[in-house]
Amino acid sequence: MLAMSFELRAWLPATQQRIERLLADRMDLIAVRTPTRLAEAMRYSLLDGGKRLRPALCLAFADALGGGGKAAEDAACALECIHTYSLIHDDLPAMDDDELRRGRPTSHKVFGEALAILAGDALLTEAFWLVTTGPAAEAPARAMMASELAVAAGAGGMVGGQVLDIADDRPAAQEYLMQLHRLKTGALLKAACRLGVLAAKGSAEALAAADRYGEDLGLAFQIADDVLDVTSTAEALGKPVKADSAAGRFTFPAVVGLEASKKLAHDLIVRARQAVLTVEPTPGVLAALAEYSVERTR
Amino acid sequence: MLAMSFELRAWLPATQQRIERLLADRMDLIAVRTPTRLAEAMRYSLLDGGKRLRPALCLAFADALGGGGKAAEDAACALECIHTYSLIHDDLPAMDDDELRRGRPTSHKVFGEALAILAGDALLTEAFWLVTTGPAAEAPARAMMASELAVAAGAGGMVGGQVLDIADDRPAAQEYLMQLHRLKTGALLKAACRLGVLAAKGSAEALAAADRYGEDLGLAFQIADDVLDVTSTAEALGKPVKADSAAGRFTFPAVVGLEASKKLAHDLIVRARQAVLTVEPTPGVLAALAEYSVERTR
Repeated sequence: MLAMSFELRAWLPATQQRIERLLADRMDLIAVRTPTRLAEAMRYSLLDGGKRLRPALCLAFADALGGGGKAAEDAACALECIHTYSLIHDDLPAMDDDELRRGRPTSHKVFGEALAILAGDALLTEAFWLVTTGPAAEAPARAMMASELAVAAGAGGMVGGQVLDIADDRPAAQEYLMQLHRLKTGALLKAACRLGVLAAKGSAEALAAADRYGEDLGLAFQIADDVLDVTSTAEALGKPVKADSAAGRFTFPAVVGLEASKKLAHDLIVRARQAVLTVEPTPGVLAALAEYSVERTR
Repeated sequence: MLAMSFELRAWLPATQQRIERLLADRMDLIAVRTPTRLAEAMRYSLLDGGKRLRPALCLAFADALGGGGKAAEDAACALECIHTYSLIHDDLPAMDDDELRRGRPTSHKVFGEALAILAGDALLTEAFWLVTTGPAAEAPARAMMASELAVAAGAGGMVGGQVLDIADDRPAAQEYLMQLHRLKTGALLKAACRLGVLAAKGSAEALAAADRYGEDLGLAFQIADDVLDVTSTAEALGKPVKADSAAGRFTFPAVVGLEASKKLAHDLIVRARQAVLTVEPTPGVLAALAEYSVERTR
């Protein structure tokens, strides 16, 4: 959290707090109608103090365009539900078989595999409840947000990216790596930006800016992740370092080198900041969030 | 397929064919934007010749109310995507650890656990894409359909029911069993009926009828499943018989006896047929589908 620009120093903690409160309130609602053990498993992973980058991006775009009201908040929570479900399923023994996530035992270590799978399923489903439920006047925006969310999270997006990631026959080529990350993390990060615009009923121009910004930030974010896996400590990261390279997963530093990776991420962020000027003419929170997505220490 | 009334003899095969074509077309669209192996796993489970009861119920309600157009067809496909995902995940080693489904090896036996989990995730996500994507004029109905689908499939519905089903500390009481099945199978069957009404822009009265009919049919369907597990053959069922009782899963015949189970299912169907008279004043397809849901041989 050291590498944080002036614009984010107050905004990011306040926004993270806002998101925590929204997620905690939602979790309380869920618990009322959910078998206790399932609600516990959902809560354990959803309220674990993640960075909340996706909801923050969604709210930042909505706020930059005059605010998106409850639709933006619901979309923000939905994005975090989907992100959380993907982490739970990625950590499963059949996938990455990870034991630690953000410094705590992974879901299947605490609740067992069956409940971890189901908690993920429930969080994914909850996301679409959140995003599609609102007053009739919001229905067009909400249907569109849900549709985009499904595209980003599904077979041609995040799930497809995970399939590319676990494939046995991955070619060790930068092109494959970029496609993998465009799907696995990029699609949902881009959707986060677009959903903020849709919730605020932004213009087609704003939507196009969100597209370009989200696309570049998404890839830069993943490169930064790969770089952190090499340069950070387990303590700062909350999970073992060099896990990716040890697992034979090929990463940006492995494919193009460490310095070239940092440069690539930096160039993408310069471009993202440029793209978002139509939404935020004086560089502010959105520009700073782009920096933060690669300058972060975890 | 022997126990089929006059009303269904032409309607059901024609409707099943219609659904197969819709699902196959959708699968072709999915395959274009999806890693090959993932598309194969989705196709393997989605196009495996299931009974298609949920989409049939959805289309039957829509047609009884004047037709629901593409919204009804999309909802029908979404229901089958969600049903299919739930079967893939239920069959996983961490859950029921089943090797056969409809006479074929289960998804994880063919594609491995990781891909089976991801194929399920992708089908669930695809369902919400299907149901939320359409012309602007349909947005209110589509947002509502997606919202109801999420409620039925999520933590307080189908996923919650599966959690009750795999719990170690299940009380051997009829009340618990009924609650389990109301969530695990009942919620989605009821949603199938309601989505048909919503797609056709049916009245509040029609929606209430779909509620009562779907609720009773859902429970009767599950009782019939339990009865078939005791009385049918592996060949007719496409999976081992007495698997549920052997696995220590308590079933309706085990809790209330075989004859009482049959009587309970019969009484529920009489009530369901009664409830649907406001939608279908002369008993036709809907009345016959209620019968079929308990008289079927697989």
